[in-house]
Amino acid sequence: MIIKLKYRPEKKDFDAFVAGLEKEGLAVHEIDGERFTVLGLTGDTSKLDADRIRALDFVSGVKRIQEPYKEASRSFHPSDTVIDISGKGIGAGNFRVIAGPCSVESEEQLCGIAKAVKASGADFLRGGAFKPRTSPYSFQGLRKEGLRILLEAKKLTGLPVVTEAMDISQLELFDDIDVIQVGARNMQNFELLKELGKLRKPILLKRGLSSTLQELLMSAEYIMAGGNDRIILCERGIRTFETTTKNTLGLASVPLLKKMTHLPVIVDPSHATGNAALVKPMSMAATAAGADGLMIEVHNDPANALCDGPQALDPAAFDDTLKAVKQILPFAYRD
Amino acid sequence: MIIKLKYRPEKKDFDAFVAGLEKEGLAVHEIDGERFTVLGLTGDTSKLDADRIRALDFVSGVKRIQEPYKEASRSFHPSDTVIDISGKGIGAGNFRVIAGPCSVESEEQLCGIAKAVKASGADFLRGGAFKPRTSPYSFQGLRKEGLRILLEAKKLTGLPVVTEAMDISQLELFDDIDVIQVGARNMQNFELLKELGKLRKPILLKRGLSSTLQELLMSAEYIMAGGNDRIILCERGIRTFETTTKNTLGLASVPLLKKMTHLPVIVDPSHATGNAALVKPMSMAATAAGADGLMIEVHNDPANALCDGPQALDPAAFDDTLKAVKQILPFAYRD
Amino acid sequence: MIIKLKYRPEKKDFDAFVAGLEKEGLAVHEIDGERFTVLGLTGDTSKLDADRIRALDFVSGVKRIQEPYKEASRSFHPSDTVIDISGKGIGAGNFRVIAGPCSVESEEQLCGIAKAVKASGADFLRGGAFKPRTSPYSFQGLRKEGLRILLEAKKLTGLPVVTEAMDISQLELFDDIDVIQVGARNMQNFELLKELGKLRKPILLKRGLSSTLQELLMSAEYIMAGGNDRIILCERGIRTFETTTKNTLGLASVPLLKKMTHLPVIVDPSHATGNAALVKPMSMAATAAGADGLMIEVHNDPANALCDGPQALDPAAFDDTLKAVKQILPFAYRD
Amino acid sequence: MIIKLKYRPEKKDFDAFVAGLEKEGLAVHEIDGERFTVLGLTGDTSKLDADRIRALDFVSGVKRIQEPYKEASRSFHPSDTVIDISGKGIGAGNFRVIAGPCSVESEEQLCGIAKAVKASGADFLRGGAFKPRTSPYSFQGLRKEGLRILLEAKKLTGLPVVTEAMDISQLELFDDIDVIQVGARNMQNFELLKELGKLRKPILLKRGLSSTLQELLMSAEYIMAGGNDRIILCERGIRTFETTTKNTLGLASVPLLKKMTHLPVIVDPSHATGNAALVKPMSMAATAAGADGLMIEVHNDPANALCDGPQALDPAAFDDTLKAVKQILPFAYRD
Repeated sequence: MIIKLKYRPEKKDFDAFVAGLEKEGLAVHEIDGERFTVLGLTGDTSKLDADRIRALDFVSGVKRIQEPYKEASRSFHPSDTVIDISGKGIGAGNFRVIAGPCSVESEEQLCGIAKAVKASGADFLRGGAFKPRTSPYSFQGLRKEGLRILLEAKKLTGLPVVTEAMDISQLELFDDIDVIQVGARNMQNFELLKELGKLRKPILLKRGLSSTLQELLMSAEYIMAGGNDRIILCERGIRTFETTTKNTLGLASVPLLKKMTHLPVIVDPSHATGNAALVKPMSMAATAAGADGLMIEVHNDPANALCDGPQALDPAAFDDTLKAVKQILPFAYRD
Repeated sequence: MIIKLKYRPEKKDFDAFVAGLEKEGLAVHEIDGERFTVLGLTGDTSKLDADRIRALDFVSGVKRIQEPYKEASRSFHPSDTVIDISGKGIGAGNFRVIAGPCSVESEEQLCGIAKAVKASGADFLRGGAFKPRTSPYSFQGLRKEGLRILLEAKKLTGLPVVTEAMDISQLELFDDIDVIQVGARNMQNFELLKELGKLRKPILLKRGLSSTLQELLMSAEYIMAGGNDRIILCERGIRTFETTTKNTLGLASVPLLKKMTHLPVIVDPSHATGNAALVKPMSMAATAAGADGLMIEVHNDPANALCDGPQALDPAAFDDTLKAVKQILPFAYRD
Repeated sequence: MIIKLKYRPEKKDFDAFVAGLEKEGLAVHEIDGERFTVLGLTGDTSKLDADRIRALDFVSGVKRIQEPYKEASRSFHPSDTVIDISGKGIGAGNFRVIAGPCSVESEEQLCGIAKAVKASGADFLRGGAFKPRTSPYSFQGLRKEGLRILLEAKKLTGLPVVTEAMDISQLELFDDIDVIQVGARNMQNFELLKELGKLRKPILLKRGLSSTLQELLMSAEYIMAGGNDRIILCERGIRTFETTTKNTLGLASVPLLKKMTHLPVIVDPSHATGNAALVKPMSMAATAAGADGLMIEVHNDPANALCDGPQALDPAAFDDTLKAVKQILPFAYRD
Repeated sequence: MIIKLKYRPEKKDFDAFVAGLEKEGLAVHEIDGERFTVLGLTGDTSKLDADRIRALDFVSGVKRIQEPYKEASRSFHPSDTVIDISGKGIGAGNFRVIAGPCSVESEEQLCGIAKAVKASGADFLRGGAFKPRTSPYSFQGLRKEGLRILLEAKKLTGLPVVTEAMDISQLELFDDIDVIQVGARNMQNFELLKELGKLRKPILLKRGLSSTLQELLMSAEYIMAGGNDRIILCERGIRTFETTTKNTLGLASVPLLKKMTHLPVIVDPSHATGNAALVKPMSMAATAAGADGLMIEVHNDPANALCDGPQALDPAAFDDTLKAVKQILPFAYRD
């Protein structure tokens, strides 16, 4: 950590400051310039609170050299993590596809879609039971009944299921769910993250609409600090000034995240674009960029979907997309 | 609502579509151009789900003319709402100042600050008991004990207290709290919003980091749809490419929100800038722009604050800021 | 075009307004709702100035249904345009690679790089003679001498050359240059665009840092309105809150632009990421997404480059990247 | 400047690197941590090219401690600069208002507006002769004739005139113009900036749509490096995800810029909001925040303006706005 001083404090204050840092096991190195003084800290600063130093009157700026996360960091865990989900691994070259509707609408709907996506080669089934919707007047999901239907579809097809929990109070219903999803709007719902840290179940953590990659890893760190290290990160686009697409899918985050962390990274081209016509090319691009998997919305009848119809593929388009993805896969980027 | 068609569907499909809309009490008007057809809907479309129409194969775009919120809308409630908080009103010219530390750290700390801000003219006391922190290794708040201390400080000074709830499970502890704050990261925690809708207590709803004004009002609508209409909106800056300040405080949102809604709108210059040196000028600017109040972080010893020290004013700087604000107030913008 | 009225103006004013629109060959359709009136215009509105209508006192909003560009629009020119550059086509499945250093530094440097990139399969040579630099104290390019060196390298290798013009006054020096580049910071230098419209030379038009896709096409329209329709569009990332990469490369713009326009679309992964380590995966992803080509910075000695060294590949890394791109190419997305 | 090393290079390479830095008059200090090495440079690094260091194989990051601009920097010129414009100063407490139409449309129009804004208390007259328009089909300005009309209006009213130059080739027409404006889209038109550096005339430099404050100051530095230090900076909002207003006017940039630089800073609430109804509150807020002046668009007949009508005030609204601004001014923020 590098600390730039605004001015040189009184000797006694300065000594107390240095002593405090040294007590935390850090060594303090001093550089005196003509116009400023800089301190360099060496040792493990990952748990040091930069803001508390930044607040000191004589400090004009603080710059981290080490990352503020440790469990999620590639520097502390050099090799790729593979997450096992009911017998199927994801990460380190194991590429997986999660598919299904935005919302679970009925048993007939979900089972039909589940059979179709399985036939096309999907590995996991997704479907929202609890739905975060911008408007209180939009369909809010079948909730508990939705979870029951997901487990029916799992029984029918053998596909492990992925679905979102929006609140701690719902978690008791998720015992038989294979992967719990944390939605973009909940990426910094820290109370929920802490609870998920107590579980020993895979978590699919989606990047927030305006979260940096570092913040995404800090949220993973929340879960990992609790002891649950089975986390799959999901890039789903960020919010920018460009509104032609729902979000901006900056795929450089895929190779970049994989340098920063050992956790698997997948891409959700459906929410990232909000436009079914862009899901195929973005699935192909994400695969080429080295993603560990994809999460794609598929609906038997997008025009009548209760949620996010404009971005859903029908089963035939999904099948076509997966074929294209599989042609790219053998040539995909690996670091 | 305006619907642009990609192509003209078969008569039977088109008639079914129109019939469906008419069943919801809407009238459908058709405009045929050379290169496209457009439908105009009249009637109350505020609860119509635009996405479900957008998903139709023959629809290329949908544009709302009416807002998708109703309870929060100025068009349905033309006059300003005044929220009464333990006897003090906010809104419609009643300007209020909320002040206090980012986190409650101890009884001594909070009571000292409470007395100081009261002496300077603050109307309400703030202080975080449950703290949303980016890092799991940062101070997470005194939690239940923090609420107890807030109530002590209230007893001592008579200042009503404002503090944040991060999760439904915490709400049972908030019975004696005067105003429950929803933080920026929870603005779209819809389960929490629904629970708050069941209460009859004032809610301070902060704008999300990357939320549009419309989304902020949709979140207010969630609470209001549940029957709780005592909502104070809080602008606290948005995330942009400019990183010299923590956030970008676009104050045009103040007069704009006040056109869109009848609810009071306050500004938090501390989180908006993340820089104590900018809190005074931004407090003055927000007041000039017509805000109904301010929320300002004050700490007795910013350099040793357990949270967000760089943006906290000390009591003397707060006093100086409030004096400056009060000079502007009589000349502030009123629509 | 859809016009929403704030209120119904006096009959005489309204009739004059309608008559004005009809004089421009448009038909005006009226929809009266309970709470508002909407007008729908049909006919060719592409040259109508929406702002002038938006300024009317009785108008509350204007929404275009047709695009405000015509020459660049796919709806008016359904089939892909292929641009011929000294005998090599680009567009409609003709995939081309432009490579070379950020800046021309010396004849030896450029000729060395030119031979290397040709050997790896590049189609065109790039190199900056006039350099837009954020700081006046950074290297500003060899200017006229740089152009001379580019033409030497062309003579040596047969590679057509692409280089940037920053100002109208420089254009007289570009007679023998094959493709004139308009940099991101000049995308809305309208005087320059107009001059380029008078030429009959291919133009490589880079997207501005904060330009929408529509604005990019409006800038192409400036050149095309002057009679020069040989334009290659270049996506190079946009500026967002995420600063881990220099820019955010939202590749959905590639398939999207190709729906909006018939012009070829290439991608510059070097400026888009600012990070040599990300150029290979992003080149592969852009290819998979259906780009018509790539523009990649290559330097013989990135560590000593006079400009943008951190994003340049050395010849071996470029060769490796191109091999990977060529494996993806046969399976790339085509609409 | 702080340089973080990826790894420790061979002794000979490292020594050569250090020797190179020392030759530029810098001292190199070394900090060795367990997991990394950091170098601290002291001396004048303002003209050092950080990118060239960042490109070195063994360097993983570079962080500036000093600003990369010098002429524009407050640290090198502690007291406020006052720019004299035909006898009226701006800066250091001299607050000035520039007003006039977006475009010069006719002598009658401009002279009428000039007389009106003068009567209300404007100090300078603005009006566009050369107009940057997104669409080639929009009105492009009266150009040379527009300049002539501006000088007529100046003769009539005595108001010095401010108008935009879009290209070097136009500058020869600007001899009698009092202040040359550089528009947001030309903030990084570096060839134009260099030419303006050769003049001895005040320059009004507008912030680019997606420019950081540091980039704005680097552009000022371009002009100042040429010897022209008469620069007025203009905040006019930035582009963000929020589209309810044309741009986002983050007024914290006003006090912040005034800490970074000694140059005067004014605000353009018209372009910043794109909405006449927001110009008054934002003018008041900008004044409260400590701006050195305002630039406001005024049109005698906004509804028929040839350009940007939706954001123009009519003379009565301008008069009302200025009255409100003058009430705030005595209480405005001063650092």
